[in-house]
Amino acid sequence: MIIRPLRADDKNQWQALYDGYHRFYDRPDLPQDFFDTVFARLMAVDPQDFHALVAESDGDLLGLTHYVFHPHMWFPEGVCYLQDLFTADRTRGKGVGRALIEGVYAEADKAGRPRVYWLTQEHNYAGRMLYDRVGVKSPFIRYNRPL
Amino acid sequence: MIIRPLRADDKNQWQALYDGYHRFYDRPDLPQDFFDTVFARLMAVDPQDFHALVAESDGDLLGLTHYVFHPHMWFPEGVCYLQDLFTADRTRGKGVGRALIEGVYAEADKAGRPRVYWLTQEHNYAGRMLYDRVGVKSPFIRYNRPL
Amino acid sequence: MIIRPLRADDKNQWQALYDGYHRFYDRPDLPQDFFDTVFARLMAVDPQDFHALVAESDGDLLGLTHYVFHPHMWFPEGVCYLQDLFTADRTRGKGVGRALIEGVYAEADKAGRPRVYWLTQEHNYAGRMLYDRVGVKSPFIRYNRPL
Amino acid sequence: MIIRPLRADDKNQWQALYDGYHRFYDRPDLPQDFFDTVFARLMAVDPQDFHALVAESDGDLLGLTHYVFHPHMWFPEGVCYLQDLFTADRTRGKGVGRALIEGVYAEADKAGRPRVYWLTQEHNYAGRMLYDRVGVKSPFIRYNRPL
Repeated sequence: MIIRPLRADDKNQWQALYDGYHRFYDRPDLPQDFFDTVFARLMAVDPQDFHALVAESDGDLLGLTHYVFHPHMWFPEGVCYLQDLFTADRTRGKGVGRALIEGVYAEADKAGRPRVYWLTQEHNYAGRMLYDRVGVKSPFIRYNRPL
Repeated sequence: MIIRPLRADDKNQWQALYDGYHRFYDRPDLPQDFFDTVFARLMAVDPQDFHALVAESDGDLLGLTHYVFHPHMWFPEGVCYLQDLFTADRTRGKGVGRALIEGVYAEADKAGRPRVYWLTQEHNYAGRMLYDRVGVKSPFIRYNRPL
Repeated sequence: MIIRPLRADDKNQWQALYDGYHRFYDRPDLPQDFFDTVFARLMAVDPQDFHALVAESDGDLLGLTHYVFHPHMWFPEGVCYLQDLFTADRTRGKGVGRALIEGVYAEADKAGRPRVYWLTQEHNYAGRMLYDRVGVKSPFIRYNRPL
Repeated sequence: MIIRPLRADDKNQWQALYDGYHRFYDRPDLPQDFFDTVFARLMAVDPQDFHALVAESDGDLLGLTHYVFHPHMWFPEGVCYLQDLFTADRTRGKGVGRALIEGVYAEADKAGRPRVYWLTQEHNYAGRMLYDRVGVKSPFIRYNRPL
């Protein structure tokens, strides 16, 4: 298994994974237009926008992660927000998620913005089993504007 | 009391407030250089970087907030992250914090990126009394890369 | 202010406080029979059942607490569960809650079962401000059988 | 697999399981005296003290649970506190934990005290995967007296 940046010819496999991710969060049936737009953003390699890494084994995509660098008031170099992480059901427990997070750590180091963080639902037990090993839970919780 | 953007002549009062904010998070004794750099960023009005609103009453600054727009994978217009919020001790309970958050809501609406969120410590009881009235707690918690 | 055991002639003032407690937990309009039964249990001084302490100032009841000793598998002497704690609105911030908890600590010591615990809602911010000073938050959360 | 009350001839297997439970909570190396005392309490069938159920398959003990009825201020019949639950590593995911909890529900019903609750650590992910299916998370968290 290797961790590498997303490529144009990954489109179909990437979409299957990202669709699975949204189903996990109860957002099924996203239109094709959503996936086309997002994929185009990832391919544009805009330093202000999201980047993607995928885990590949013999041409098979096993997982994906999307991350973005954004400014931070306290750390002038900015920080890295790992927003999406997803691995195929058939690969759970094989270290794919961990390899993807560590791939983002490596990219963040290269970019000189080593502070990486992510958010997860308190009851995402399977995810947190991994996150407690590669990260540290903070006491911060998220509030949203009601819309 | 009015809510308005930070101005160059607010520097001293802004610094006193922002220093109080960092003391709240046990980050005392930040160097003057830190405040100079951050203030310059806020004055630069860079659409990719942080913006500041302050609450003023008769020339007296009662509170501040710093927010930034950053990309989001699911919402192509991006989202608004309200990072810092602080009010002077002498004004607690007077609606300054609420007015500042609502000021950010108004700016986010003007920018066409109405989704506003913030993070707070689970045990920030005084803050959460306000946040439960102007926002909605999500089930998301934050993990950090250990550094 | 003194902390002392509940007495038979406290009935009316005790009931007013305990009614306020249930309203706090959105259990309004409890029948008189509920209060009569509970008060009789507290007066029976059954070592297996609940006990009550009240905070009194010049004949005025300012707060109450109900606690019970129950067996524990790990600690053969048993433990003390402080179930109810309530103070009159007009006395908030005057140290009544703290004095009542410390009163239970003293009773638990006298009974040779010094381990005292209580449960509170995660979002009971006012209560937790006090509890963080007189107690220690554990990582334990409560699950209920669905009924 | 059957769920049944603990018997005197279960002592050795029960002790192996209960020792595993304490190791899970980082309480290793409990003295033999601890196990003897607790087992004697469970065998005494004192209605005020703890009871035990075990899961057995062909003479093999796969799991245990200890529960106690204690008074409650709001519910005059009292409530059932399920304190200990443990299953052998080799049986995880086989429904042993669920069967034990449902066994306690049945005993609580028989006793006319159907309200059952338990506490678990927020980060006990494997446990909570089960508890979310057979129970309901409440907003209550536990505070302890510092000792």
